Amino acid sequence: MKPTAALPHTAGVPRVYFDNNATTPLDARVRAAMEPYFGMAHGNPSSAHGYGRQARQAVEAARSKVATLIGAESQQVIFTGSGTEANNAVIFDAARRAGGKGHFVLSAFEHPSIDRAIESLEEMGFSATRVPPEANGVVAGERLAAALQPETILVCLMLANNELGTLQPVVEVAALCREKKIPLLCDAVQAVGKVPVTVTDLGVDYLVLGAHKFHGPLGAAALWIRPGSALTGLLVGAPQEFGFRAGTENVPAVVGLGEASHWAREEMASRKQHLTGLRDRLETGLEDLAASRVHCRQAPRLPHTTNVAFPGWVGRDLMLALDLAGYAVSTGAACGAGDPLPSQTLLALGLEAEEAIGSLRISFGIENTQQEVDDFLCVLPRVLEEQRGGSLSLGGGTAR
Amino acid sequence: MKPTAALPHTAGVPRVYFDNNATTPLDARVRAAMEPYFGMAHGNPSSAHGYGRQARQAVEAARSKVATLIGAESQQVIFTGSGTEANNAVIFDAARRAGGKGHFVLSAFEHPSIDRAIESLEEMGFSATRVPPEANGVVAGERLAAALQPETILVCLMLANNELGTLQPVVEVAALCREKKIPLLCDAVQAVGKVPVTVTDLGVDYLVLGAHKFHGPLGAAALWIRPGSALTGLLVGAPQEFGFRAGTENVPAVVGLGEASHWAREEMASRKQHLTGLRDRLETGLEDLAASRVHCRQAPRLPHTTNVAFPGWVGRDLMLALDLAGYAVSTGAACGAGDPLPSQTLLALGLEAEEAIGSLRISFGIENTQQEVDDFLCVLPRVLEEQRGGSLSLGGGTAR
Repeated sequence: MKPTAALPHTAGVPRVYFDNNATTPLDARVRAAMEPYFGMAHGNPSSAHGYGRQARQAVEAARSKVATLIGAESQQVIFTGSGTEANNAVIFDAARRAGGKGHFVLSAFEHPSIDRAIESLEEMGFSATRVPPEANGVVAGERLAAALQPETILVCLMLANNELGTLQPVVEVAALCREKKIPLLCDAVQAVGKVPVTVTDLGVDYLVLGAHKFHGPLGAAALWIRPGSALTGLLVGAPQEFGFRAGTENVPAVVGLGEASHWAREEMASRKQHLTGLRDRLETGLEDLAASRVHCRQAPRLPHTTNVAFPGWVGRDLMLALDLAGYAVSTGAACGAGDPLPSQTLLALGLEAEEAIGSLRISFGIENTQQEVDDFLCVLPRVLEEQRGGSLSLGGGTAR
Repeated sequence: MKPTAALPHTAGVPRVYFDNNATTPLDARVRAAMEPYFGMAHGNPSSAHGYGRQARQAVEAARSKVATLIGAESQQVIFTGSGTEANNAVIFDAARRAGGKGHFVLSAFEHPSIDRAIESLEEMGFSATRVPPEANGVVAGERLAAALQPETILVCLMLANNELGTLQPVVEVAALCREKKIPLLCDAVQAVGKVPVTVTDLGVDYLVLGAHKFHGPLGAAALWIRPGSALTGLLVGAPQEFGFRAGTENVPAVVGLGEASHWAREEMASRKQHLTGLRDRLETGLEDLAASRVHCRQAPRLPHTTNVAFPGWVGRDLMLALDLAGYAVSTGAACGAGDPLPSQTLLALGLEAEEAIGSLRISFGIENTQQEVDDFLCVLPRVLEEQRGGSLSLGGGTAR
């Protein structure tokens, strides 16, 4: 094994990772559980010989662990390669079954795998209503209900927003949808593993989760389907995953998802306490920086996400300066990280462009420590000071 | 790390893996290259900070290695989660662009991710012609050409058949398709890494390869797209993979695909010699078993695949008995391994059902040895003898 510390980028820089909403470091226990499936246990789960049966058992054991985490039955859990794939599968299938036209209702800050999938259908004749969040980062259930039409074929509401961490009123909206017999897709990628999620309590029809957002590996996600809900899979071919999703199962990644689910459930309470502690310590520290304002602080939120504005600064400049100082934070979703424009999610809250463009997302993981937060709070004022000066000396040419 | 030898299934049984067309063991060098990305180097390639840039560099380095293996430019290579996904993407996109109707031409033994994807389109009004292989396991180019219609929107021809190992006349068919301006999708999943593949020499429009078939990991495949060829990706969302394929890249798996590509290219000649040696040793040994007949032995073939009939036996029984004896072989594609029916591929050759149902596929990998082949040839006559007796004592109730 190569020593990971020898990678060129790690040399000499203290590296602190505060961008766990983009992706999380792999839990060492999860990695250990995956190891055999990179080694001797390399079978294809569809093979009938011992190697294949061993792989099949591993996949099914993982399925059971994922199901347990979300209070579901194993046979309702379909493994996919990503949350994007799972979200796409539900949306495109709803469109297919509707036969060429229909209406979608979604929040205005859904993940691109939902928003752009629906946008691609709008280009083909479907329609959609995007319901903006209130100023506190939470979509109002009654506004979403008011958007429902007789032609509505699917409602999409995330369980927690990826940029703000705000929890959405999924239970309330699911009840409204059930009344009108409209299926509800809940993208719970940012929430599962961080807050308790029970699919039957939520009352949704489809729920999506992804391993790499809670210390599991990339390449494994899951789609929960309520019994009786319709789905024709997105990927067509051999009859894997009960016929819902063709393609050889990514056994090590699926095993990792199972293991990550196990530990998330075991440690739910202690993780919440740890993460909330880090977040509150950070946000209390930020109060002393007159320049800052934490978004949606009073809303129901995930325990580990802070989104904070430094009005007058450029978030992207701050992010890059903090990166040089050894701290990985984000200006918004990783998906849009190359984008110098203000976050659409923040603009949807009704923020001024200046405040939106000056915002940073700091998202903690189980490996972060109080010391890291304290160190960050020492470094941040210096970075703010430098960036203020730096930006001024550049004149008026920046996006600020 | 758990010792992999401690897995329950490995206890006490010599385990020899002869099913490399289902999936291959991960090369230890590939595994080592992936390791850092399960550890400190856990960034999301879309993130702008150091972790993200490190992941991005790893993905791009891998892309370059894959491109080099197939004689392509990096920017023509799109990573996907599986060969199924890549095949589906091309087929469903062709259908979308055709606007609801059109005709497909494919061989009668394409992979299910092609065959069933087209079948699903046939249910929606598209049509298709499936061209059977000749008795030698090779599709005749002129028969495929004869199937082309003015309405044909896509031709699908695999580079090597997964059950027989026979190489298909892709160069010839590609030239015909080019004349008629019909795009050609070449599923090269079983061929890449085992025989030299140069996309420009082949003359195809789309080519698909998958890491886990040549000692790379599960969860990473690639789609090569000829410059100027159309494609709207199957997965829609954030703008990863040049906008062709949404979803966070599976960084460790992609790195593994790159490393597997590197070693496949470096060692192409020595691997071919090694694998051909194993196969010829096996097939020479099989000649002494009057009961056996190797399929398509005279056709151009991959170096590592033998498909052999034991007429009068049930392949599935032989496979299970060999599994107990420590040898993992297959009765056909892993995708259909639960299926007691004779392989459709073998029936397509014109074999009698008895011969098809009595066939085994033995596929070698770089880790197999001559000693393993010799041991197998010692064990096989005993298994054949036992299975003959066993099946007779069961009376006429079996599928034989």
